[in-house]
Amino acid sequence: MLLTNATLATMDGTPAYGLVEQGVIVTEAGRIAWVGPASELPAEFHGHESLNLGGRLVTPALIDCHTHVVHGGNRAKEFEMRLQGASYEEVARAGGGIVSTVGATRSASEDDLLAGSLTRVDALIAEGVSTIEIKSGYGLDIENELKMLRAAKAVAERRQVRVRTSYLGAHAVPPEYKDRPDAYIDEVCIPGLEAAHAEGLVDAVDGFCEGIAFTPDQIARVFDKARSLGIPVKLHAEQLSNLGGAQLAASYGALSADHLEYANAADAAAMAKAGTVAVILPGAFYTLHETAAPPIDAFRQNGVAMAVATDCNPGSSPMTSLLLSMNMACTLFRMTPEEALAGVTRNAARALGLGDAGMIKPGLRADLAVWNVEHPAELAYRIGFNPLWKRIYGGAL
Amino acid sequence: MLLTNATLATMDGTPAYGLVEQGVIVTEAGRIAWVGPASELPAEFHGHESLNLGGRLVTPALIDCHTHVVHGGNRAKEFEMRLQGASYEEVARAGGGIVSTVGATRSASEDDLLAGSLTRVDALIAEGVSTIEIKSGYGLDIENELKMLRAAKAVAERRQVRVRTSYLGAHAVPPEYKDRPDAYIDEVCIPGLEAAHAEGLVDAVDGFCEGIAFTPDQIARVFDKARSLGIPVKLHAEQLSNLGGAQLAASYGALSADHLEYANAADAAAMAKAGTVAVILPGAFYTLHETAAPPIDAFRQNGVAMAVATDCNPGSSPMTSLLLSMNMACTLFRMTPEEALAGVTRNAARALGLGDAGMIKPGLRADLAVWNVEHPAELAYRIGFNPLWKRIYGGAL
Ligand SMILES: [Zn+2]
Ligand SMILES: [Zn+2]
Repeated sequence: MLLTNATLATMDGTPAYGLVEQGVIVTEAGRIAWVGPASELPAEFHGHESLNLGGRLVTPALIDCHTHVVHGGNRAKEFEMRLQGASYEEVARAGGGIVSTVGATRSASEDDLLAGSLTRVDALIAEGVSTIEIKSGYGLDIENELKMLRAAKAVAERRQVRVRTSYLGAHAVPPEYKDRPDAYIDEVCIPGLEAAHAEGLVDAVDGFCEGIAFTPDQIARVFDKARSLGIPVKLHAEQLSNLGGAQLAASYGALSADHLEYANAADAAAMAKAGTVAVILPGAFYTLHETAAPPIDAFRQNGVAMAVATDCNPGSSPMTSLLLSMNMACTLFRMTPEEALAGVTRNAARALGLGDAGMIKPGLRADLAVWNVEHPAELAYRIGFNPLWKRIYGGAL
Repeated sequence: MLLTNATLATMDGTPAYGLVEQGVIVTEAGRIAWVGPASELPAEFHGHESLNLGGRLVTPALIDCHTHVVHGGNRAKEFEMRLQGASYEEVARAGGGIVSTVGATRSASEDDLLAGSLTRVDALIAEGVSTIEIKSGYGLDIENELKMLRAAKAVAERRQVRVRTSYLGAHAVPPEYKDRPDAYIDEVCIPGLEAAHAEGLVDAVDGFCEGIAFTPDQIARVFDKARSLGIPVKLHAEQLSNLGGAQLAASYGALSADHLEYANAADAAAMAKAGTVAVILPGAFYTLHETAAPPIDAFRQNGVAMAVATDCNPGSSPMTSLLLSMNMACTLFRMTPEEALAGVTRNAARALGLGDAGMIKPGLRADLAVWNVEHPAELAYRIGFNPLWKRIYGGAL
């Protein structure tokens, strides 16, 4: 199949956006076979079936590399209570906070979780997303963590989308382990990881290293187990304070460290050396009224690859628009539109350890997004507008 | 027609949201004939044709009471240049700023303008919007201001949506009147208003009272003309500084004063006395990195009605999601979800001088939005998610 008459933002090499004017993409068996200007199309492909894209812009399909899209319930009432002036204690007494999501997730069936998730997944797909990372972390007991991961894997059976799962048992200490985080790590989190891995449910292991969650030592125990099982790691790090999570993650060769509002230049240097991607999550920054921005300049200067994701979750980022995440990354963090687009394509693929996606390049999957825009900067510029014309998934419209 | 089995956020009276559980709405000839709990449905309506809404939430259809949705071109390249570090002068030298939109708008035909606008209007309609205010203000000469208003009126012929036009000749001083704002007001803005009014194109007269636009005296001359023609006024006021625009607007009994980041308690008191609505525009605040928030508490304390709108425009708010405006009003300005919903329904209608919309109430138009949510707070809580099930316009699905 030839895709013709398009501007291509290949995200592969120079010039900016890897832009190719009057470009052609040849797909074969779900992969990209050739890409370049129409004038250079090899003779072997002439005469193949073709689709004229009418001069539209083609980018790699988008990749949302950090989501909690599988979860029970919502936290709208808590959102409202806070805006009505309720204190943290009043919200907690009314059952708010992560505990409410844990309760709603535990009481939901796998089918309930799946059905609720699909409404959010559909919103992402409608914006040209082909690959979604989905974390566990609201079960916080072995059975419910596995249930979340099974629901996450089931998303890919119900929709044309790739799912990469992250086991996030070390997300929070559940009520029944209050003040006993070490016991939770040893008795639930690590055995849960083993069980989930045995069932083939774990593509990566994640954790939340923060004062309100787990210490670097506790995370390291989980990461040691991940390493022994041969599973790559990633980490929620330096979101609310700097506890050394980014450097811990780098020391394990983590795929990514995520949030990073309180990361510093030394963290950036360690991440660069380890090849750890910085996953930027402006939705949570926005929702939490955070004031410290992640050190974008330090990431740039150290050559740390930056990804951008929705962090879709019911508490700190009930967001299902990856395009809006791009706009927020630019508006709130001064990333450039090109960095934002790389952040939801090439670098998002890296943050998930995917070598076959995120660029328009021979050999990679033919996961593409075709947009009613003239220039790729428009994707980050608009706010709450979806200019997707068609998504191409594995070579098929 | 009976709309049954719904939760109704009537936005009319107590309790919060004017909520009616197990509610029924009776529509007749495009109007609401009766509304209340199913248990109180009068016998005369029993047996009418009915639509079971499956327990969904119904609100008044949304009203976007401040947009510049008709315009030529976009400013994505300027957005990108700024994020690449270009100075204001470099952007201006490259043809950026409002001048670029004026140029693109002048060179577009009425049909071009209409076609470009409809993509944005469709995004608003998809979120349950039934009524859109559209301003001129990028023509800045008589013929092009009229062209914009004709395109705005044509939107209502091409889509099932009500349009209210505002003549915004006093938006900016065009290049050909550089340093001669008074001459522009006298030679273009006021004659243009007369011409537009003669053609039936003007529902309200608007202006931009700001250091970079027009002084209160210049605006007053335009408002005097509006008054003599019997047209209500509204004003972009105190967005970047306090020049007295809000009090000027109040002194003319304006429908609304809009933006208001730099308004103060005295302004709020004057607006309350005049019945002038405060139109809150968080998209521009967000895009411009504004630090002063509008004085929401002062508006509350003085009983000023607050509306919320997208300010959809290519420079400072390229936003086409009224739901996102609601979320931003809550997140950035600490408005409550109920205030945000009143801001895009009841108070948005007031800001447009519409007595027949914005509530679910007998006698009003049957413009309704039916949502896949359980509680109205969810509409403001989610970010970049559209839970609309169906829009009902003039009583028809
Ligand atoms: Zn997260
Ligand atoms: Zn405006």
